[in-house]
Amino acid sequence: MKSFKSLLILLFLSFSVVAQDQSDKDSLNIRNFYDMSLLHGKSYDWLDYLSNEIGGRLSGSYEAQQAVEYTKSELEKLGLDKVWLQPVMVPKWVRGEREFGYIQTGPGSTRNINITALGGSVATPQGGTRAKVIEVQGIEDLAEYGRKNIEGKIVFFNRPMRADLINTFEAYGGAVDQRHDGAKEAAKYGAVGVIVRSMNLRLDDYPHAGNMSYGDLPKSERIPAAAISTNDVEYLSGLLKIQKDLELYFKLNCKQLDDVQSYNVIGEITGSEHPEKIMVVGGHLDSWDLGDGSHDDGAGVVQSMEVLRLFKETGYKPKNTIRVVLFMNEENGLRGGKKYAEVAKEKGENHVFALESDSGGFTPRGFGFEANDAQFEKIQSWKPLFEPYLIHYFERGESGADIGPLKGGNTVLAGLKPDSQRYFDYHHTAIDTFDKVSKRELELGAATMASLMYLVDKYGFDNSHKADSASSQ
Amino acid sequence: MKSFKSLLILLFLSFSVVAQDQSDKDSLNIRNFYDMSLLHGKSYDWLDYLSNEIGGRLSGSYEAQQAVEYTKSELEKLGLDKVWLQPVMVPKWVRGEREFGYIQTGPGSTRNINITALGGSVATPQGGTRAKVIEVQGIEDLAEYGRKNIEGKIVFFNRPMRADLINTFEAYGGAVDQRHDGAKEAAKYGAVGVIVRSMNLRLDDYPHAGNMSYGDLPKSERIPAAAISTNDVEYLSGLLKIQKDLELYFKLNCKQLDDVQSYNVIGEITGSEHPEKIMVVGGHLDSWDLGDGSHDDGAGVVQSMEVLRLFKETGYKPKNTIRVVLFMNEENGLRGGKKYAEVAKEKGENHVFALESDSGGFTPRGFGFEANDAQFEKIQSWKPLFEPYLIHYFERGESGADIGPLKGGNTVLAGLKPDSQRYFDYHHTAIDTFDKVSKRELELGAATMASLMYLVDKYGFDNSHKADSASSQ
Repeated sequence: MKSFKSLLILLFLSFSVVAQDQSDKDSLNIRNFYDMSLLHGKSYDWLDYLSNEIGGRLSGSYEAQQAVEYTKSELEKLGLDKVWLQPVMVPKWVRGEREFGYIQTGPGSTRNINITALGGSVATPQGGTRAKVIEVQGIEDLAEYGRKNIEGKIVFFNRPMRADLINTFEAYGGAVDQRHDGAKEAAKYGAVGVIVRSMNLRLDDYPHAGNMSYGDLPKSERIPAAAISTNDVEYLSGLLKIQKDLELYFKLNCKQLDDVQSYNVIGEITGSEHPEKIMVVGGHLDSWDLGDGSHDDGAGVVQSMEVLRLFKETGYKPKNTIRVVLFMNEENGLRGGKKYAEVAKEKGENHVFALESDSGGFTPRGFGFEANDAQFEKIQSWKPLFEPYLIHYFERGESGADIGPLKGGNTVLAGLKPDSQRYFDYHHTAIDTFDKVSKRELELGAATMASLMYLVDKYGFDNSHKADSASSQ
Repeated sequence: MKSFKSLLILLFLSFSVVAQDQSDKDSLNIRNFYDMSLLHGKSYDWLDYLSNEIGGRLSGSYEAQQAVEYTKSELEKLGLDKVWLQPVMVPKWVRGEREFGYIQTGPGSTRNINITALGGSVATPQGGTRAKVIEVQGIEDLAEYGRKNIEGKIVFFNRPMRADLINTFEAYGGAVDQRHDGAKEAAKYGAVGVIVRSMNLRLDDYPHAGNMSYGDLPKSERIPAAAISTNDVEYLSGLLKIQKDLELYFKLNCKQLDDVQSYNVIGEITGSEHPEKIMVVGGHLDSWDLGDGSHDDGAGVVQSMEVLRLFKETGYKPKNTIRVVLFMNEENGLRGGKKYAEVAKEKGENHVFALESDSGGFTPRGFGFEANDAQFEKIQSWKPLFEPYLIHYFERGESGADIGPLKGGNTVLAGLKPDSQRYFDYHHTAIDTFDKVSKRELELGAATMASLMYLVDKYGFDNSHKADSASSQ
């Protein structure tokens, strides 16, 4: 009995030692990723090139093609096992000449407004659109006002993002239907155009672009849709209170052209033990055209590239196949994400994990996961390894648009969650530019992503995270 | 036996219900602080005035005096029980004409450098200081080089802040001795001046001011000390490798004048149950003069004022006395902090808690505490209440310089810990300006501070946090 007890204690101690060794090794490897990223990182230089040498990368544009070629050639320098382009047809919407608009503030007096066409919008007629304005707080107001109050007018959607929500993406989610569906719905009541309060939590002069859709609306019924800056929104709304019949003028010159050929850019380190098990890390290459797309999503692109570079540079050889996927056309079509998942399905590929960074290059706070209970429990057991890096947030939630089509089966999806407070200061505007990205914050994000990829690679989701061979079954 | 067990269960359930009720009430009160701050906050407007109407507030300057008067008058509008000025004599160091310097890059060719005198430095001689340069990696190198290599030269301290440290304040702590003590030590080896690598983690053109001290060094032996921008540091260091005997020229026009009268600004809500128990929340009113001191420490000032306003506006009546203290002269003397503690001691005041915000107006991550085990355990029991606001960091560590002199007895000290990644991009520079502060981040910090002050007021540190009357004994 005594010797059995001793044996048990001995066994327990050995397990403890092994577990402690593993945990120490993990701590060390993770420390290596952070050191390499912060001291010898490449992400910031890559972003500099993408942002300042190439610039805004609207799907189908020359800049988007340049970004494809640049990132492919940079991935080729990393000594990966494979780098390739995955063809995908993408929509090509062009802005044309910059938009123009004003409020008729009085007889012969006007005030110009900062305005941008929404992606997918039709142009205004040749001479622009001029009409009275009806302000509403959301799509649900349209039915209440009815055709008699809306017909022939410009509908002005002005429900702000909620400042009391701590996660600004939630605030965005609560307002963005006005931008996406406002024109489609207002057209049904005979509106001649739509202007939307920019998806912005602060008051400034920058209009926010973004996608919209007419759904099934016949071409002949489509009306032009634009966003105006929050300062102009406040002015317009105030003026409307004392001057209900004021007129607004705007002119959009945008156009939807035929789909064109484009590409997802893919690089891979083939797994040493389980080459058939695939783990994806990615962001999207395309951006809106007003700024240079540094936060959305240049940051996610270069962080994802950096993950594979950190693996190579620190000498970590993944057991599973690690793929960086730089998706095309997240902003106005999601064609890249859909194509990647479609091809994966055709080929019968086994995707065990996908991680996306598409919430800006700000200080990383943690991750949102789409995972089952057992998978999520495993993930949470890794939290202590992240604490030295002030990464505390591990919650269930949305992962990323581009990896969304991979959902299904046992594939775990994750999204990097950076601090969200300033994201909508820049999102889709002319000031989403390189100077708004902090080198350190960007690099911390890349290291945080590499650390998670490492843990998933090493321990998988099938067994105890303590066992080194956990992903072997 | 059975009925005793039932009684126990009943008792347990009642306690649970009471505890749940309390916790719900706490959640609600905390939510109110956040809502009020984010939707109807005053902190950002106050900071706008301090930064843009008043500007940099060096101790003893007219701007510092304006800040005293402005904040006093704003506190008086809040309906507090008492607002007063606490006199304190402060050092008055003046910059004089802006500094100038260059590297002699070759015969007849120079490169200007971005340079700023360190606070407390003597001026250069009338015609400036010109000398050869010896680059060192820290004070400890001086003894190694010795007088024969240092005499007659300018010592160039160039040990960078460590980029691999996640908390940038740690990186600062590991480099700032060069700025604070470099001149005092170099003078002992016959150096004629000191230039220091700016306390900055990135490469840019902004020199970082900050305090230095000659200690006991006789006046006649004091040598001028300045910081230069990191871009200039890199240039100088590179050039020195191929041109060891290059000369550097700089001219400082600063001067230490006699001490002048100034003030701490104090406002108070007198406690409803324990007026004799005092809880302080504060920041420092003075700043360096190159920028407008928005992050350091305009943010802390307005957040501290906002805490009392949030209590008043949400109708929370504290049991203890809540004091906002806006300290004078943190940057170059800490006279305000010392004076406040000195007066408190003279009066035999009982300070149970003090909270300082002096780490910038960035997204709050949590707090650092100076507390004993029992106190810290109590604090940690409150963590779940902060999770909805993404406040996760509750660790032992430094609190704040101004409240430091209150240390002793059972006084618990705390410091707000905002995200630190960008703090040293701005700290003590010409770009520590209002536009670098995010309204939301500032407001989240104020609400987070109010929430902690509320919990300490309600539960104190003497008893179980579940009992409403915990602070009554």
